[in-house]
Amino acid sequence: MEQLEAGQETATLLINCPDQKGLIHNITQFIYTNGGNVVDLEQHVDASESRFFMRISWDMRDFVIPREALAVAFQRALATPFQMDWQLFFDDQRPRMAVFVSQHSHCMHDILARYQSGEWPVEIPLVISNHRVMEEAVTAAGIPFHYLPMTKDNKAEVEVAQLALLRDANIDVIVLARYMQILSPAFIEVYPHRIINIHHSFLPAFPGAKPYHSAHARGVKIIGATSHYVTAELDAGPIIEQDVAHVRHSDDVEDLVRKGRDVEKLVLSRAIWNHLNHKVLVYKNRTVVFE
Amino acid sequence: MEQLEAGQETATLLINCPDQKGLIHNITQFIYTNGGNVVDLEQHVDASESRFFMRISWDMRDFVIPREALAVAFQRALATPFQMDWQLFFDDQRPRMAVFVSQHSHCMHDILARYQSGEWPVEIPLVISNHRVMEEAVTAAGIPFHYLPMTKDNKAEVEVAQLALLRDANIDVIVLARYMQILSPAFIEVYPHRIINIHHSFLPAFPGAKPYHSAHARGVKIIGATSHYVTAELDAGPIIEQDVAHVRHSDDVEDLVRKGRDVEKLVLSRAIWNHLNHKVLVYKNRTVVFE
Amino acid sequence: MEQLEAGQETATLLINCPDQKGLIHNITQFIYTNGGNVVDLEQHVDASESRFFMRISWDMRDFVIPREALAVAFQRALATPFQMDWQLFFDDQRPRMAVFVSQHSHCMHDILARYQSGEWPVEIPLVISNHRVMEEAVTAAGIPFHYLPMTKDNKAEVEVAQLALLRDANIDVIVLARYMQILSPAFIEVYPHRIINIHHSFLPAFPGAKPYHSAHARGVKIIGATSHYVTAELDAGPIIEQDVAHVRHSDDVEDLVRKGRDVEKLVLSRAIWNHLNHKVLVYKNRTVVFE
Amino acid sequence: MEQLEAGQETATLLINCPDQKGLIHNITQFIYTNGGNVVDLEQHVDASESRFFMRISWDMRDFVIPREALAVAFQRALATPFQMDWQLFFDDQRPRMAVFVSQHSHCMHDILARYQSGEWPVEIPLVISNHRVMEEAVTAAGIPFHYLPMTKDNKAEVEVAQLALLRDANIDVIVLARYMQILSPAFIEVYPHRIINIHHSFLPAFPGAKPYHSAHARGVKIIGATSHYVTAELDAGPIIEQDVAHVRHSDDVEDLVRKGRDVEKLVLSRAIWNHLNHKVLVYKNRTVVFE
Repeated sequence: MEQLEAGQETATLLINCPDQKGLIHNITQFIYTNGGNVVDLEQHVDASESRFFMRISWDMRDFVIPREALAVAFQRALATPFQMDWQLFFDDQRPRMAVFVSQHSHCMHDILARYQSGEWPVEIPLVISNHRVMEEAVTAAGIPFHYLPMTKDNKAEVEVAQLALLRDANIDVIVLARYMQILSPAFIEVYPHRIINIHHSFLPAFPGAKPYHSAHARGVKIIGATSHYVTAELDAGPIIEQDVAHVRHSDDVEDLVRKGRDVEKLVLSRAIWNHLNHKVLVYKNRTVVFE
Repeated sequence: MEQLEAGQETATLLINCPDQKGLIHNITQFIYTNGGNVVDLEQHVDASESRFFMRISWDMRDFVIPREALAVAFQRALATPFQMDWQLFFDDQRPRMAVFVSQHSHCMHDILARYQSGEWPVEIPLVISNHRVMEEAVTAAGIPFHYLPMTKDNKAEVEVAQLALLRDANIDVIVLARYMQILSPAFIEVYPHRIINIHHSFLPAFPGAKPYHSAHARGVKIIGATSHYVTAELDAGPIIEQDVAHVRHSDDVEDLVRKGRDVEKLVLSRAIWNHLNHKVLVYKNRTVVFE
Repeated sequence: MEQLEAGQETATLLINCPDQKGLIHNITQFIYTNGGNVVDLEQHVDASESRFFMRISWDMRDFVIPREALAVAFQRALATPFQMDWQLFFDDQRPRMAVFVSQHSHCMHDILARYQSGEWPVEIPLVISNHRVMEEAVTAAGIPFHYLPMTKDNKAEVEVAQLALLRDANIDVIVLARYMQILSPAFIEVYPHRIINIHHSFLPAFPGAKPYHSAHARGVKIIGATSHYVTAELDAGPIIEQDVAHVRHSDDVEDLVRKGRDVEKLVLSRAIWNHLNHKVLVYKNRTVVFE
Repeated sequence: MEQLEAGQETATLLINCPDQKGLIHNITQFIYTNGGNVVDLEQHVDASESRFFMRISWDMRDFVIPREALAVAFQRALATPFQMDWQLFFDDQRPRMAVFVSQHSHCMHDILARYQSGEWPVEIPLVISNHRVMEEAVTAAGIPFHYLPMTKDNKAEVEVAQLALLRDANIDVIVLARYMQILSPAFIEVYPHRIINIHHSFLPAFPGAKPYHSAHARGVKIIGATSHYVTAELDAGPIIEQDVAHVRHSDDVEDLVRKGRDVEKLVLSRAIWNHLNHKVLVYKNRTVVFE
């Protein structure tokens, strides 16, 4: 095992397979005998599902399998025999992220600030919106802004146009930064577990529209936000991150909205951070999030 | 205004009435002109309901209205003209609290520890249980323990026996410390907004049985607990206090239960503290909790 | 008492005086008998100091004392007899806030986003910086940016220039959004308890430079941030707001810095919110923060 | 890799050594080739120290090295070549824990409740106290209570008596549950990194006596608690766990003490849980705490 140095080329594998004896040994042996130095390893076994999950990163500098041959070699040596679902990432290839936004600006502003300060290992080649509210701020950050207004009649055509933009920009992950349109199942299928939404309640409480109004009416003492991967069922996808804020009887709906915005920003940014750093695996509508 | 001194006799009013001009002035004038010194005052207006809420405490030592005449005087001077719902408490009269428990011991142990250390201004004249699990610990703390086993056939009779015990002990407030029986509406009506329950989820998520199992199945990243006044509708009464704990993919149901116990204890103890100190008002299934 | 309506003119008093009998009655009587309707009242007595604190807001529409005569009337009727320190604000007069920033962008970006979305009742007539890093973002938000580079030799002249800018812009409150210069006592004296700083630790732990490095070296499991009014003694002024984040052994200094930025933004924004809404009183290096 | 079943015999290794290539592979190979199934593995590399840390558990049922020969085998095969510091535990051997307490009862009550409910994998063969306050509660829980009163003159003799009791009871770990005496360096040396203290502040703020008084005087908005291993330097040992609670201007010292008790109990109980489950490693006054 060895430290990650600046300029070092690193590979990361996310693995998910039926649990069985010797998995860690076989995987670390594959890396070690091919000259790789493990720089990070996390694993988890879901006992009730007998399912094994792993994230492992290693230094590629002395690795004898060339980068372009690695996927094939890994498939043959380990993935096929152990029935692995797996994903392979190289640290010098930054994920390409699209952001969808409507009129609420706080999550978009937060993403722009983190992007501009270089906090995240990411490229943002485009922002798509059904409103012009954020156009100036997005453009000022040097990101192309695509205004695609949506009516009740043109949703299908707009989604076609959105998908074309995403495909042309070679997008890996989509963030819905308070995007107030429901994506069609056909759209979602193109990016399975690669569309991150922020919902403004602690799910499963208050799904759907106007959760702060519902929270106020119920008289809760905490409000929350939930970031999850979008699936065909509304607000029911695998949860990546959640957090809450305390509220009081003196907080009216407007106060909940104001306090909630800060929770939404934090929860969404943590979910994005984990996704971009390849720390999230999905299995049966639940996530494994390595830290 | 003046400081509360040891041995001082203090009165506390909880008031709840339609909002209108001059309320605070009229109430403080009543106290001031009768020789009382205000030691604490908190108020809240629910704008959407046009409803006024107040908690006010004052020193009774120089107060010219005798204690036994105060309720009548206040009713005539203020409560009737301003259509007030109100409650009056004297600090030297400690609330009398009954605890109902089943087999889970953690909340009961927590209550006993706080009781024995004198943390709460309370008398606990009895504990009622449908199991014998906590008998020894309760008895060791000097509290009479009433074992009333419950079957599917004897619920009505047992409730009659419970109510008799509560009445004989002159009970003001009942705490359900993980009591695993549903109280009948008839029972609840006897103690409106005076039965405090702890539910092991952040309501309104996961009401009913086995919330930790549901939380695990849904893959949430936070678990919680909710303390509320019991009403006829299960787990739907006015919420007094809520809190949460973060959980991870590596936490199985048993871990959620373990972590949840600590949240339950804290949330229940804070709700009890607030109730015993006359800091909670209820209006239309929501609470005002003064700090 | 009455609800605040849109377009309503409201006055807010912050009062701080020796505690004595009848204070609340006298103050509410002054407002009531002059035709004002109280819309908010919070009070606190510091028993160990025998000091009374109050924040009271009332509707000015039917108030018989004209706005321009109010200060004199209040001084004569109440402030002089009760030896009150007090401040008077009108809700339609937005505080004017200057922001000082250096090279760290996160707090400045956060402030700009809140300013542009209209979250705060504030005007920001200028930003002052000893670096050009934030110039573009500040200017894009429509705020004049003043670049005043600082060397070890020109500090006194730069402060003179800063004070001139502040005076010309009629500034009420200054926010140091990770401004990495120490203000001189002479500068601080001009804005007593009106300069808000964010320090990147939970004070009094880790005052001074490089708190995240110190936190990592000590092996703490929480990091924090503290917002306080600047006084002549470094990082020792009255604390307005604090919060923390949990960290783990796997977090290196860079992780602490990253996680800490989110805490800093939140803590600073809450302190600013409370200050702008006239909810903070200072007495003997401690704050009363009404909610 | 395989699931842990009831009745299964499991071994856990804590390892700490200079970082180098192939460590994980060599360790998992040792277990795998000897017939062990890994049930849990966590590792961490401290880059700044070039130090490797690991916690690994495996099923012993098919393991070919007998339990009593394991230490020698591991030392020869791995510990010596890789210069490992290591500890070996078997899950069916419950740690033996002594508790020291003075007059504050809350942590002791909390420990007793968890002990009686079977929450922790632990034996508590004795409680030692310099006061009789907790004698009845401890004895009622079936734990021998040793009353050893301490004066300014008899400290050395009392420590000798304490050490004899600990040795006779074969104690593995000592918990200071608000024990208000400072242990001598000679005492501490006998149990290096095996004495767990709870300090009632978020260290390094407010070490020493009366931290709540200091916190109130400084006007902080959070209070906290810190659990750490005791070292010769007071309140400066490696931190295992910390947490905080928010406080307000209206909280006097007594309120801080009351709110702080709940934080102390939680923080201490989490530190004990982690220690008892062999999740804590110490290196250079910092801890690695695996989850």
